[in-house]
Amino acid sequence: MRRKEFLIGDENYEDVVEFLQEMSFGFLGIWKEGDYPGVVPINYVYFNDAIYLHGSKAGEKMNSIKQKPNVSFAVAKEYAQIPSYMSDPFYACPATVFFKSVYMTGKAEVVEDLQEKCDVLNELMHKLQPEGGYHPITLEHSGYASHVKATAVIRIDIDQLTAKFKFGQNWKPKKLQHISEQLLQRGQALDEQTAELMMRYCPHAKQHNEAE
Amino acid sequence: MRRKEFLIGDENYEDVVEFLQEMSFGFLGIWKEGDYPGVVPINYVYFNDAIYLHGSKAGEKMNSIKQKPNVSFAVAKEYAQIPSYMSDPFYACPATVFFKSVYMTGKAEVVEDLQEKCDVLNELMHKLQPEGGYHPITLEHSGYASHVKATAVIRIDIDQLTAKFKFGQNWKPKKLQHISEQLLQRGQALDEQTAELMMRYCPHAKQHNEAE
Repeated sequence: MRRKEFLIGDENYEDVVEFLQEMSFGFLGIWKEGDYPGVVPINYVYFNDAIYLHGSKAGEKMNSIKQKPNVSFAVAKEYAQIPSYMSDPFYACPATVFFKSVYMTGKAEVVEDLQEKCDVLNELMHKLQPEGGYHPITLEHSGYASHVKATAVIRIDIDQLTAKFKFGQNWKPKKLQHISEQLLQRGQALDEQTAELMMRYCPHAKQHNEAE
Repeated sequence: MRRKEFLIGDENYEDVVEFLQEMSFGFLGIWKEGDYPGVVPINYVYFNDAIYLHGSKAGEKMNSIKQKPNVSFAVAKEYAQIPSYMSDPFYACPATVFFKSVYMTGKAEVVEDLQEKCDVLNELMHKLQPEGGYHPITLEHSGYASHVKATAVIRIDIDQLTAKFKFGQNWKPKKLQHISEQLLQRGQALDEQTAELMMRYCPHAKQHNEAE
């Protein structure tokens, strides 16, 4: 059952890109020996409308991709666990979790072009080490060239992308307000941000904001 | 290529269980239509040596599992991005990431026994809402009984489990010490804990601790 109320549409595409740029690792779905749908946590960079990964040229992951290039890639972040008692003093059922998740399917291809590999590795460095502190990776530098050749870079061309941001979009304004206040009072690390995202994505709040 | 130096063996099995109990969600690898290896982020509880999930009785996930019960489940947490300049002033190559990850394969089965379903839902609540604030889920309570029946619970009986905790186990003592000091100085949220884990899992440190 697809819960349509949490799907993020094209009008919030920039939020999806921002989320993909913020997160450092995702989970690659590949076929593993024995016909298992395997899951591999891995750092990535979203660049040129594609997901890029890097790693060793040898190994199970590379073999799998060469044989069966249809893969998926998921990125998810939990923002807040919403305890049941915030909306009901007795039943456990209302307990829920607010999160962002992006799910992509696509074709994985090993990048052979050395310049593209260089570009990807620089983007990855820029993402994971934005403060710099290293010489940019170039093929002209002999100390880098051999490393670039020896490193495997994989590009996933995305066929389909589905983003699900769950922040109480199906709740009535009163409940939304009530839970939001309790989150602000609880004050865990992401609670304030969660309350903001509830306001950002909830249709009632949106209409309210637009009416002002 | 399996990097053996990061594998966590049976002697640290309790650390693996503790990690599975600490983390709130993992990534389920399932077969998806179109012959894609799908990845689904989902809350779980590790209980009775199995991974338990819950969700809607309808939908793609349930259909997939009934048709192809061979699944995988991955849980991962990033502890620290180690910037290249902590070990080299010029090259980007030493940049790395410390993490814990657990990968399991197994057979997924839909749980039909109502008491087992109750037990699982209580364990899940206990994990995600340890502070309580709800009436325990029992079949005797009519308000709960229908919910328990309507909720799908899935058990993954684990065939294989591989844990990889990467905290510089292949580094020489001097480098380990040098990076550890810089992490403590940097002081990001998990840096102190990362430095402790480096000492816990690195063979040199272990030998050193045992010699004392």
